[in-house]
Amino acid sequence: MRHLISPMDLSVKELDDLLDLACDIEKNIDKYSHACSGKKIATLFYEPSTRTRLSFEAAMINLGGQVLGFSSADSSSAAKGESLSDTIRVVSCYADIAAIRHPKEGAALVASAKSNIPVINAGDGGHQHPTQTLTDLLTIKSLKGRLDNITIGLCGDLKFGRTVHSLINALARYSNIKFILISPKELRVPDYIRDNVLKANNIPYVEADKLEDVMPELDILYMTRVQRERFFNEEDYIRMKDYYILDKPKMELGKEDLLVLHPLPRVNEIAPEVDDDPRAVYFKQAQYGVYVRMALILTLLGIKVD
Amino acid sequence: MRHLISPMDLSVKELDDLLDLACDIEKNIDKYSHACSGKKIATLFYEPSTRTRLSFEAAMINLGGQVLGFSSADSSSAAKGESLSDTIRVVSCYADIAAIRHPKEGAALVASAKSNIPVINAGDGGHQHPTQTLTDLLTIKSLKGRLDNITIGLCGDLKFGRTVHSLINALARYSNIKFILISPKELRVPDYIRDNVLKANNIPYVEADKLEDVMPELDILYMTRVQRERFFNEEDYIRMKDYYILDKPKMELGKEDLLVLHPLPRVNEIAPEVDDDPRAVYFKQAQYGVYVRMALILTLLGIKVD
Amino acid sequence: MRHLISPMDLSVKELDDLLDLACDIEKNIDKYSHACSGKKIATLFYEPSTRTRLSFEAAMINLGGQVLGFSSADSSSAAKGESLSDTIRVVSCYADIAAIRHPKEGAALVASAKSNIPVINAGDGGHQHPTQTLTDLLTIKSLKGRLDNITIGLCGDLKFGRTVHSLINALARYSNIKFILISPKELRVPDYIRDNVLKANNIPYVEADKLEDVMPELDILYMTRVQRERFFNEEDYIRMKDYYILDKPKMELGKEDLLVLHPLPRVNEIAPEVDDDPRAVYFKQAQYGVYVRMALILTLLGIKVD
Repeated sequence: MRHLISPMDLSVKELDDLLDLACDIEKNIDKYSHACSGKKIATLFYEPSTRTRLSFEAAMINLGGQVLGFSSADSSSAAKGESLSDTIRVVSCYADIAAIRHPKEGAALVASAKSNIPVINAGDGGHQHPTQTLTDLLTIKSLKGRLDNITIGLCGDLKFGRTVHSLINALARYSNIKFILISPKELRVPDYIRDNVLKANNIPYVEADKLEDVMPELDILYMTRVQRERFFNEEDYIRMKDYYILDKPKMELGKEDLLVLHPLPRVNEIAPEVDDDPRAVYFKQAQYGVYVRMALILTLLGIKVD
Repeated sequence: MRHLISPMDLSVKELDDLLDLACDIEKNIDKYSHACSGKKIATLFYEPSTRTRLSFEAAMINLGGQVLGFSSADSSSAAKGESLSDTIRVVSCYADIAAIRHPKEGAALVASAKSNIPVINAGDGGHQHPTQTLTDLLTIKSLKGRLDNITIGLCGDLKFGRTVHSLINALARYSNIKFILISPKELRVPDYIRDNVLKANNIPYVEADKLEDVMPELDILYMTRVQRERFFNEEDYIRMKDYYILDKPKMELGKEDLLVLHPLPRVNEIAPEVDDDPRAVYFKQAQYGVYVRMALILTLLGIKVD
Repeated sequence: MRHLISPMDLSVKELDDLLDLACDIEKNIDKYSHACSGKKIATLFYEPSTRTRLSFEAAMINLGGQVLGFSSADSSSAAKGESLSDTIRVVSCYADIAAIRHPKEGAALVASAKSNIPVINAGDGGHQHPTQTLTDLLTIKSLKGRLDNITIGLCGDLKFGRTVHSLINALARYSNIKFILISPKELRVPDYIRDNVLKANNIPYVEADKLEDVMPELDILYMTRVQRERFFNEEDYIRMKDYYILDKPKMELGKEDLLVLHPLPRVNEIAPEVDDDPRAVYFKQAQYGVYVRMALILTLLGIKVD
């Protein structure tokens, strides 16, 4: 029984196989349209997350499978005091695989311990969101053609952003990656990332205050949102907020083959005028999120398609 | 890429083709049971509307397709500040067609502008609800055999009722229609309907205070609800409310081949004793709502069935 | 048109046929995987109940059918004042069969009166929950091999627990059943069960205060929860609560072929240490709940599979 709780649950070899499968799915989607015929995914969402939920549902439907589940804790048995361990054991009777979103860190891990079916962590509080990381990796691999030899800029809230932390962890396993970490001082990556991941593995990185200073170097720009309330004072916010908003003038500083990613939803950190730039691939990224989840479902269910 | 935002997006020719297709679906529903195999509809309901949502879902399932979506804004990414334009672009990666219900006027139009998939307006505030109008037209065409040469009574709240306004607009394009507008003075049709649609096209109409005065003339009676709070004062409400409640005695005044429609849900404006009268077709109307949505999905997806 | 409103709607013969069908489904589930192809179940849940809803949905999907519906009253037309009679008539246009959960006693019965499709009562207030009873019966029949010649202990809140009342009613129709009713004095079975069902039919029963006193006698132990707030005073609660918590020491008093059932969700009335005991079958019971609902859907739709 395999689960996916953290992106690091997969070895580099397993990850490469998964991404290869996702690439094949992208090219030959019809080949997979009955692969999960008769299978069901349970989407157990204890907090709302439409995008992630719909993406899992689309993935299972694309594979010829079916969906059941709930989209908020109100409509679950949690209200009656049932433990997540009991819920997953019952859901094991209803479905073949489960995707769990829960506000509490470690929830998916707890669920997986008692589950008779594979459990996918679809986000556990601020902790892990492994299928977002898989989506990011597939987008880079598919559109850039490689996961090594990349200079990647990560921009925005690097302190609290779990997708950023996961992506650094995942890319750190590939060779010749350079990280450029663009954020206000208050929102820089936590020490445990800087020390345990970057320094410990001799991975080159630079910390920058302004996006425009580093734009020309980047192969990939990974944008995230800077929430106003995360700044220490209003003055700082006003002084700096434009540093982290991607617009046409900043795009002009970027390479011709730059790729701009964003986990979405965005608020105002990317100006809508950027959307039509062919280097803006954040909506394509949502599509890759479906392919990689299709690959993940097949892998965890042990289903092979020839 | 075709969308359906307003009932008037369709020319009379296109509308007739759509209704013909819906009639064929009614007669030969099995022929269409795999027409949308492998297709998905996203039902994006930012406000609850079970009837409309289930009707779209039943339509897509009848066509062999699948459904994903949400049934209230709480469980959507709107809560995180995402624009409808971004949402529809992401949903375009998950589904082949979308039905959007939103409390804000013009929401579906905004969504359609950036969508890569056909968008159906499933109601935008008090503005438009085109699939209700298509349902009404199909019900009349199927059960009466024609959309011209009809005297139709519209009864209830003609001022705020969007289904009434849409139906007047739609029927005004057919020949020899006579409208009988039955409502309290305070709730008569707005000037822009009376002047721009009826008078401007020389379409005969009569305004009436009491349903029973005009019952004998009607080929179609389209009932809607009069909400108590819409009256100017309690006295008026008490004096007039019975004028607009359809019961057995009023039905006795109607023609033998009268048809009574209602967009539903009803509250008390049609007495339950009327339900068993064969001329009461408002529950059949709900069935026609499924057929016409099946026809609409096929048309917007450009799928033809031989 | 058949409905299932109360477990007693089925004669013993019909019940036996249904359970036989469910047993065959358990053994040959693939044979039934397209039995409801093209059919839809509407799950109309006016109050949340994830377990029951998902169980119906899994059942219909296992039969090759599809699902539509809602999971809380907010997203239904009830908010607009529509009667349940009207709702079911409209839903009859969308689906082939409906499962209704409603907080009001008698709701499913009211709905069935006007329905054009079979209605299954999926719980109406504290009144009836017939598919839970069918699940209990199937679990006993499958794992014990019989529904007669059984000494069954019912433990916990026997006063308010509707599943207990239904199960007593259902088993009372089989021969040589002995009931052991284990509960605090305040929560004993109501007089109408004791007098009209047990005494009236000369069915042997014993009332007990403590679970451990009767453990050695039991073939089946049916556990339910004792809610703290049901006790008359805190002192009684503290004195007695452990009498009704099943743990390893109490399990050691039980027969080797004892079966422990629970309708779930449990809170603390069964210690987690009991879960690994092979006599604990409450999670298997959830699986039987799917099989028996599959059998019920087939039976009410009149579908036979050879």
